[in-house]
Amino acid sequence: MITYKDQPVSILDHGYVKLIGVYGDDQHIDYSARMSYDGARKVSDVRGLIRYLVRHRHTSPLEMCEVQFELKIPLFVNQQLIRHRTANINQMSYRYTEAIEEFHLPGLDDLKPQSTDNKQGRDGYLLDDEKVAKQAIMQRVYDYCLRAYRELLGDSGQELARETAREVLPVSTYTKLTWKCDLHNFFHFLKLRLDPHAQYEIRVLAEAMYFLAKPHFPIAFAAFEDYILNSKNLSGLDQNLLGYLLVHGTMPSWEQAESIGMSKREYSEFVVWAETLSAKSTTSYA
Amino acid sequence: MITYKDQPVSILDHGYVKLIGVYGDDQHIDYSARMSYDGARKVSDVRGLIRYLVRHRHTSPLEMCEVQFELKIPLFVNQQLIRHRTANINQMSYRYTEAIEEFHLPGLDDLKPQSTDNKQGRDGYLLDDEKVAKQAIMQRVYDYCLRAYRELLGDSGQELARETAREVLPVSTYTKLTWKCDLHNFFHFLKLRLDPHAQYEIRVLAEAMYFLAKPHFPIAFAAFEDYILNSKNLSGLDQNLLGYLLVHGTMPSWEQAESIGMSKREYSEFVVWAETLSAKSTTSYA
Amino acid sequence: MITYKDQPVSILDHGYVKLIGVYGDDQHIDYSARMSYDGARKVSDVRGLIRYLVRHRHTSPLEMCEVQFELKIPLFVNQQLIRHRTANINQMSYRYTEAIEEFHLPGLDDLKPQSTDNKQGRDGYLLDDEKVAKQAIMQRVYDYCLRAYRELLGDSGQELARETAREVLPVSTYTKLTWKCDLHNFFHFLKLRLDPHAQYEIRVLAEAMYFLAKPHFPIAFAAFEDYILNSKNLSGLDQNLLGYLLVHGTMPSWEQAESIGMSKREYSEFVVWAETLSAKSTTSYA
Amino acid sequence: MITYKDQPVSILDHGYVKLIGVYGDDQHIDYSARMSYDGARKVSDVRGLIRYLVRHRHTSPLEMCEVQFELKIPLFVNQQLIRHRTANINQMSYRYTEAIEEFHLPGLDDLKPQSTDNKQGRDGYLLDDEKVAKQAIMQRVYDYCLRAYRELLGDSGQELARETAREVLPVSTYTKLTWKCDLHNFFHFLKLRLDPHAQYEIRVLAEAMYFLAKPHFPIAFAAFEDYILNSKNLSGLDQNLLGYLLVHGTMPSWEQAESIGMSKREYSEFVVWAETLSAKSTTSYA
Repeated sequence: MITYKDQPVSILDHGYVKLIGVYGDDQHIDYSARMSYDGARKVSDVRGLIRYLVRHRHTSPLEMCEVQFELKIPLFVNQQLIRHRTANINQMSYRYTEAIEEFHLPGLDDLKPQSTDNKQGRDGYLLDDEKVAKQAIMQRVYDYCLRAYRELLGDSGQELARETAREVLPVSTYTKLTWKCDLHNFFHFLKLRLDPHAQYEIRVLAEAMYFLAKPHFPIAFAAFEDYILNSKNLSGLDQNLLGYLLVHGTMPSWEQAESIGMSKREYSEFVVWAETLSAKSTTSYA
Repeated sequence: MITYKDQPVSILDHGYVKLIGVYGDDQHIDYSARMSYDGARKVSDVRGLIRYLVRHRHTSPLEMCEVQFELKIPLFVNQQLIRHRTANINQMSYRYTEAIEEFHLPGLDDLKPQSTDNKQGRDGYLLDDEKVAKQAIMQRVYDYCLRAYRELLGDSGQELARETAREVLPVSTYTKLTWKCDLHNFFHFLKLRLDPHAQYEIRVLAEAMYFLAKPHFPIAFAAFEDYILNSKNLSGLDQNLLGYLLVHGTMPSWEQAESIGMSKREYSEFVVWAETLSAKSTTSYA
Repeated sequence: MITYKDQPVSILDHGYVKLIGVYGDDQHIDYSARMSYDGARKVSDVRGLIRYLVRHRHTSPLEMCEVQFELKIPLFVNQQLIRHRTANINQMSYRYTEAIEEFHLPGLDDLKPQSTDNKQGRDGYLLDDEKVAKQAIMQRVYDYCLRAYRELLGDSGQELARETAREVLPVSTYTKLTWKCDLHNFFHFLKLRLDPHAQYEIRVLAEAMYFLAKPHFPIAFAAFEDYILNSKNLSGLDQNLLGYLLVHGTMPSWEQAESIGMSKREYSEFVVWAETLSAKSTTSYA
Repeated sequence: MITYKDQPVSILDHGYVKLIGVYGDDQHIDYSARMSYDGARKVSDVRGLIRYLVRHRHTSPLEMCEVQFELKIPLFVNQQLIRHRTANINQMSYRYTEAIEEFHLPGLDDLKPQSTDNKQGRDGYLLDDEKVAKQAIMQRVYDYCLRAYRELLGDSGQELARETAREVLPVSTYTKLTWKCDLHNFFHFLKLRLDPHAQYEIRVLAEAMYFLAKPHFPIAFAAFEDYILNSKNLSGLDQNLLGYLLVHGTMPSWEQAESIGMSKREYSEFVVWAETLSAKSTTSYA
């Protein structure tokens, strides 16, 4: 089912996400799965079957569905998106056409210092006038680059080749593309890019895609949430500690964790996870 | 667009091909291609654009379309089909379910001796009573295997595990599967499996898939025929010989071909191709 | 590093696994990973870095290594192996060459009834004379098929084309192939095929490959064991139950599990897992 | 065979290409191919076999070899490189680490106007002082961006998160990565990126990779040159015209071409190709 007329969802300052088309639905996953055992279609347990498939990572039937989007996003977000190699992509080429003259300028509240414990992220706060100053620097760069880009192309737009002139564009320049992915790989993409460690700007993109696709596969997305998105992978070492905790009712010590080969970071992550679980349970079953 | 009700096309003795669904059409290829240059949709030159794409192997817009089939085919045909790794597949499992009790028996006219010049194919003729005798041998094997399979499963169908009992099934046993592929990779599949060197039984499959999918993408399939299916790849060596032929009007000799590093087979294939081209032209422009 | 002379490991009745070559080692994973931050090579923490990568599913550096095997396995095992689409494969073709005249005959102890709770597996026991009878049936089929195959080919080996004659071969017929895979996808393959639910005959194959490859990447395989092979994925629902168990020290009831949307099977698997963990812990920390 | 010590080849103004490792060689392709028919290794016809494989696009044995490079290239070149989805990639992350403070500045002779007949390329000439002026604009942008980037990071390098500060970097900024690809897909990459229509800056990259890898597979690369790189794909329509030319000795007219459905551009490309072939032949066989 392809419609080009759905309303786009706005993201970031100039971007959008538009669902272009969907192939399949929950019933189609069910049809494709029952192929494995030549099964008569029993609509009554579509939910049970899909949950079983997602839980046991029987991914073939999910691959029988596709979602396609049209996206307007900054180049640096596209650089991350494009790493998902099973997707099909067709992107605007700044060799063929002049660049979109829009650049991603982070909102004042998105301007944060380097995180001290996450080497790849941001965390903490800037003073208000620092934010304003940083944002102004970025805006001035965009103005400067855009003037230079236009000057390189000249009045004719042809003085310098577009493929060369674009070299002065910042990675915040917007681009457009169409992006298609099967449902299994889309779930994998969402798991990675909805993660709190993913960069904020691609998380916003993933959330919009998620929001638009979910109503087309309500059962499959509910299963995705329970078995993939909100799942926790416990290593053999984690399970060792958990066994101790279950039997003794007290958190194992760092010395115990160390003796089975855990790193400091693994141990502290385990402790936080187990304590959060208990805290939540105390509340929810109170 | 998914329909489960289309009529299947029968192939081989017990098989069929059914088009389950299609995502996209010629206009959707056009839409996806224009994304590259943020182009306004100009319906008038969909044909010109698609032919340009196929001719220049700009494959991304073709990847935005999908075709899905339900197939009933012998295991040995599936073994070849499954080598196309970009397709999505869900196949009946003879661990989960009892086998289809049907086996591919070649028609009398499909029984031929080993080809003498094609190491992987069949060619020539058998006498009528030889054909009948060979076919009877095959049928007896199938009867024998089927009786054994049933005996292994026993009256309960559970005496021996299905995953073990199936070991006695011949590779001619039928299976069912659903198979989905994007249009670019489907064209690649068709190019390889419509080739006269492909095994007859998979060629029949490819022809049925081709027949069913083509009406959904009339422009793209016409371009596929001109630029891929009926194209001829001329090596640097072939072009060297062709240049000679164009200038001198006479076929270059084997010695000339050998001196530039050609093999005997390449040379004779070149000669046949060039002569056929001339012969066809004499007829068509007569 | 390619060597064709390593000793093959025998598997099943006529099969083998031979490690043909390896590209990379633990240090090479480290080198490839440090590319992300242009890091100086610090040999001292290769272990810490690799464990971090495997734990956080940073798979790119693992993809920089490759393992290649030569395999002799039954066709029905190859049918499962070939579903791992990221591997590179070159297999004997029974169109090109006459078939290996060997067939997989399960050992007496591998002959088991259909499992009653695992729809795809075997479980339980046969009486000794039943085993002997079943095995004899299978052997007779193989003898019958082989005679027919030879008769179809005739004295010349060319009376009927090989591609047709092979149709009478059972799926237990042995084949040979060479199989290459990057380390990330090899770990994924091992996770799936070392699982107790994988068919016994492919588990044996996976174990031999594992045994042969592991000494070439000792640190990466240790990390694979802790974080992938022996890991347990807890769904959101599982964690809900676990929180209750941690707080109250008693197993949540089926009613509780049901109220949050769990299936009966999920609940009972959770209970078994949690009890096993506790039991192991009681032993190991005793 | 992995060596980290080979000399890198310099490309562009600040880039380089370094061959990090190779898996396989011509003999290994031969070994892998002979697996298809369980063939004894006959070293004498390695050349014949490899040429046969490449000519007939039997790509599986070529997939058994790998090449790995370390690259330093501008971001806009990487954006093109990354579209080859079968390669394995690990790239510097400007979230993790501060950016390389080097930017691609085209040489004076690489500054050209937009091509008038190639929508994506450059062609023609600029006056000397225009070149100097354009280059100066680009350099000023780089200086401006770099100052801004440093200012955003501040003295501590942490005032603004790296993942945000990098937004002001131009797409000409250099990056580093390691890139691995199997030989079949590497040949496909080379075919596309050595093409005169590929952007100059990635052609330079492809040429350096080609130069470094070729000595490791001399037979396979010679076959690649004859059957892929220097091959010409003739459509069904082209062959129709060629047949006429062979029979009549005169170039078919545009009206003839049009009547069979050719576009103007196809016709003129055919004419140029056929005339060039004749001209070359006149010279070489003179």
